[in-house]
Amino acid sequence: MTATEDVTHQPVRVNLLFNDRAVRVPYGVTLFDAASWNGIAIDSTCGGHGTCKKCRVRIAADPPAPTSLDIRAYTPAELAAGWRLACRTAAAADTAVEVPPLTTRPKAATVGVGRQVILRPAVQKRYLELAEPSLADQASDLERLLARLDDLQPRAELPVLQTLGRTLRESGYKVTAVVTDDVLIAVEPGDTTGRRFGIAFDLGTTTVVATLLDLATGTPVAVASALNKQQPFGADVITRISATMLDPGALDKLRQLAQETLAELARAVCAAGRVGPHEVYEVALAGNATMTHLALGIDPEPLGVAPFILSARLFPEVLAADLGLAGAVHPRARAVVFPAFGAYVGGDITAGLLASGMDRDPRVRLLIDIGTNCEIVLGNRDWLLATAAPAGPAFEGAAIRCGMRAADGAIEVVTMTRDGLSLKVIGDAEPQGLCGSGLVDAVTGLVRVGLLDPSGRFVPQQQARARAPGLADRLTQVGEERVFVLHWRGAAADSIYLSQRDVRELQFAKAAIATGWRILLEQAGLEPGDVRQVLLAGSFGSYLSPASAIRIGLVPRVPVTRVVPAGNVAGEGAKMALLSLRERVGALALLEEVRYVELSDRADFNDRFVDQLPFPEG
Amino acid sequence: MTATEDVTHQPVRVNLLFNDRAVRVPYGVTLFDAASWNGIAIDSTCGGHGTCKKCRVRIAADPPAPTSLDIRAYTPAELAAGWRLACRTAAAADTAVEVPPLTTRPKAATVGVGRQVILRPAVQKRYLELAEPSLADQASDLERLLARLDDLQPRAELPVLQTLGRTLRESGYKVTAVVTDDVLIAVEPGDTTGRRFGIAFDLGTTTVVATLLDLATGTPVAVASALNKQQPFGADVITRISATMLDPGALDKLRQLAQETLAELARAVCAAGRVGPHEVYEVALAGNATMTHLALGIDPEPLGVAPFILSARLFPEVLAADLGLAGAVHPRARAVVFPAFGAYVGGDITAGLLASGMDRDPRVRLLIDIGTNCEIVLGNRDWLLATAAPAGPAFEGAAIRCGMRAADGAIEVVTMTRDGLSLKVIGDAEPQGLCGSGLVDAVTGLVRVGLLDPSGRFVPQQQARARAPGLADRLTQVGEERVFVLHWRGAAADSIYLSQRDVRELQFAKAAIATGWRILLEQAGLEPGDVRQVLLAGSFGSYLSPASAIRIGLVPRVPVTRVVPAGNVAGEGAKMALLSLRERVGALALLEEVRYVELSDRADFNDRFVDQLPFPEG
Repeated sequence: MTATEDVTHQPVRVNLLFNDRAVRVPYGVTLFDAASWNGIAIDSTCGGHGTCKKCRVRIAADPPAPTSLDIRAYTPAELAAGWRLACRTAAAADTAVEVPPLTTRPKAATVGVGRQVILRPAVQKRYLELAEPSLADQASDLERLLARLDDLQPRAELPVLQTLGRTLRESGYKVTAVVTDDVLIAVEPGDTTGRRFGIAFDLGTTTVVATLLDLATGTPVAVASALNKQQPFGADVITRISATMLDPGALDKLRQLAQETLAELARAVCAAGRVGPHEVYEVALAGNATMTHLALGIDPEPLGVAPFILSARLFPEVLAADLGLAGAVHPRARAVVFPAFGAYVGGDITAGLLASGMDRDPRVRLLIDIGTNCEIVLGNRDWLLATAAPAGPAFEGAAIRCGMRAADGAIEVVTMTRDGLSLKVIGDAEPQGLCGSGLVDAVTGLVRVGLLDPSGRFVPQQQARARAPGLADRLTQVGEERVFVLHWRGAAADSIYLSQRDVRELQFAKAAIATGWRILLEQAGLEPGDVRQVLLAGSFGSYLSPASAIRIGLVPRVPVTRVVPAGNVAGEGAKMALLSLRERVGALALLEEVRYVELSDRADFNDRFVDQLPFPEG
Repeated sequence: MTATEDVTHQPVRVNLLFNDRAVRVPYGVTLFDAASWNGIAIDSTCGGHGTCKKCRVRIAADPPAPTSLDIRAYTPAELAAGWRLACRTAAAADTAVEVPPLTTRPKAATVGVGRQVILRPAVQKRYLELAEPSLADQASDLERLLARLDDLQPRAELPVLQTLGRTLRESGYKVTAVVTDDVLIAVEPGDTTGRRFGIAFDLGTTTVVATLLDLATGTPVAVASALNKQQPFGADVITRISATMLDPGALDKLRQLAQETLAELARAVCAAGRVGPHEVYEVALAGNATMTHLALGIDPEPLGVAPFILSARLFPEVLAADLGLAGAVHPRARAVVFPAFGAYVGGDITAGLLASGMDRDPRVRLLIDIGTNCEIVLGNRDWLLATAAPAGPAFEGAAIRCGMRAADGAIEVVTMTRDGLSLKVIGDAEPQGLCGSGLVDAVTGLVRVGLLDPSGRFVPQQQARARAPGLADRLTQVGEERVFVLHWRGAAADSIYLSQRDVRELQFAKAAIATGWRILLEQAGLEPGDVRQVLLAGSFGSYLSPASAIRIGLVPRVPVTRVVPAGNVAGEGAKMALLSLRERVGALALLEEVRYVELSDRADFNDRFVDQLPFPEG
């Protein structure tokens, strides 16, 4: 099968015209979803469940056969005129759709890579003043309540029922119903409709970030990050999987450590945002497959050995409590866990793709999410290819002698000429170490001035003096190893330096990444220059200089303005899932649209990897 | 509104002809359900979920429009010939339905009041030999498994996923999937298809009964019963509800005691039947509304005070673990909790109705379930009326001086003439006390020989000697109270006797019950003689002499052969729910068909109750 053939295996798409706005969507999605994904608002209170009957649209020419719900929602004359429920009508052909003006103005928020998202969170609240029961009206407490939620038709949970009677009677039958998607998770006394929150987690192998969101406004209320407490079990996913294979108790310990990390962050953002834990009704979790498996207590062993098998692409319904958040958020809060494409293209990249909007953009774009494991996606709205490259912990600073995370004191920018160098340090503090972006800058600079040869070896001292007289003194030894001192602190061994081994770590990482995107380009029959935009994601990507990234060969050789730092796209995707039920469905749809390219079974992978080890010359 | 008008508020019914068998069913039920309820077997592996596409039937004349599933299941020629999926076709008009012969012979079991039930338990097992994954086949573990269950399309639960990888690999990909209704609750190594069990609980206010069922054959494997451990909190539902109102900790204690009772019985039947707890995948619970609320930890207060409100008629999804059975059965076993019609016509009567088949019988029948709370249902397949009468604990022996449960040593039959009496004792043991049926017999006998006057008072000694010379010596005093000694053990106070107060307790109980069924008859515009069958249910009903029940006025005055002991109908209904998914759905349908008649808001209730206190003369 050739690359060109692969790419033609794309889902069929149809063209829709919403009033005057043309969009192109996958065949078979509902008009409601199609509109939502493209930022076109259609009235709805139920969020597309077919229960509120408010999403009225008109298809004047060739309307499809009405569904049974259409027949209940419209008069025969309206049906004949083409009125349909947008949430029940599939986009099966090119169609012009008339959308009536909204009766209420929808709120929207900007999240992800400049994405405008219409707020339609899964968490809804309704303030209800119910009629008191009497001998003439003996409807049960639950039926009485649900009768007023008939546009949502939620199912109730046992714990809600356990206290419903008391809540209704003590509040004088004035209560707020809390519905998450299709579940009634709480009934609160009085009117609490002003308060509903969610927490988006980016569960990284090294770093975990939590963002507390006000679901009514889309505003981030507080953000916190922490090191993943699993770190003592190893810096990357493979060492953590190995731990579970060696010690039968390790899986439980790793689960517990991940869950403690999440719970501590949840408590931190709630405290910072002055939000009660019981006001957080939903969380979203984006993490790579291994992190997600471990956090859910799922045996990760099959992820770690060929043929690299996920327990599930799509996870079963998960509660926040299943993630160890029982006390840190509402006890019946739901958890949205992002599905994975493959063992090494996990939920973090699904979330990142959602945030990037690559599946709706006509331009060919390349998303590289740089972390301990590096995920790479190439494509546009018609096709998407994904793969994963084991970059190792170089970019998180873990395997680098003087490495550190991108925190206060980290050297994040290194500018070098043959006469000297200058550093930029995060927080304008005294330098404490070197973070990923500083590492790339330093290596790029050393290659450019000629202190590193293209193979990645420090040149002999004599050659160094000739090429960069202002820097040559910094090229010295610590023990047996040659190093380049970036910031003197007395002896070389006590200084902040870059070692020969550090350079090797970076070489391996960038070779793995470059091999990944080169194989994707080849599969798509494209050249590096065809890429219209490179999104550099991950906390590392935000600090990385695009020029350095191009120079070192980490990204394709494209004009520097095409390389865009995209921030923490996994975390942004998790936020989008909390703010919009439609975007959440969109993330699931991605699973069907992205083709996962496995690198480990390619006979030519090692050769290609070796080809990518040298630094580009000139 | 007159009674006659009420009864015409019945659901519309349609006539179906399955091959040569005519049945009448509620409008709108599926042909599959209609056939199942009437013991007509149609092929199916999914049990009517629309997934297996095996329930082929043909409607030659006027077939309804095919559904989207029909279109996928049949060729255009078959559709034109009237072939439809029985589980997707509603009975919307009188229809002749051709049912092909079965490809496999369905098993059936006799349960309930002589009901023949086709075995179609919610719990299904499938033995699967899966292909091992490879780099060319990287389907996730869960997708690999679910692909082989595509006729059931279950959703998986997180705990199954946590161990799925290990189970698959350790068993060489030879596993048994356990599906309960639409949930994959377990994946077991190897072939365990021969072992699947369920436990049916009858949770009474006084007595709790558990039956362990082999779901593959419908055979009861073991039965056990025990006193409800809640008894120290009061003999009847009202005292237990009061306890929760007085003591904030009582609800939790009562929940715990009910759950301990259930768990001990579950362990007992599993031990007796040599069945492992993990082989019990589902339980069913039939109990009155208060018992059900308490066992689920739901605040029962609104049940105990006017206007007597249920927390819910239909309970949310409940796990056996929610009933405290986590260690006693499979940890993810489901619980079927019978829904209630009203605060005093609970799940026990829903189960009893299911077992009685009253909703499918053309005859007018009366079901009286005698317990601490007494439920009464009157009707036939066209209409059903239900009510509840607070009989008090007389029939359970609790409020009777020498009362005891119907256990070894209990006097269950008393035969009396003016010259003497004879007793029949359970277990042919030395008499220890008097159970409900013995109580009714004794009182009936005393009225007949004239030692009790119709108002329920013992006659003066002189009159007694004249009327029943062989019994008069037994009429004596214990303390201030007049008593009738049934079995001498030295002094009267040490003997087994019936006291004046005992007679009053029974009078109150029978007056409450008789008032109940009289009001129902009146609502239906019927006379007592119109009742073709009286089903006396409850453990008490099994021992009660029909002649005594008629004589004392507990049941309508009908020919004695029309009064039939029906046994523990609540427990039988619970068994039916475990053995047949269709019967379970039938129980839910009953909720819509039965009209609940509230007695406590009737201005004339007290007058009528007083009218029923005297014992019938002659």
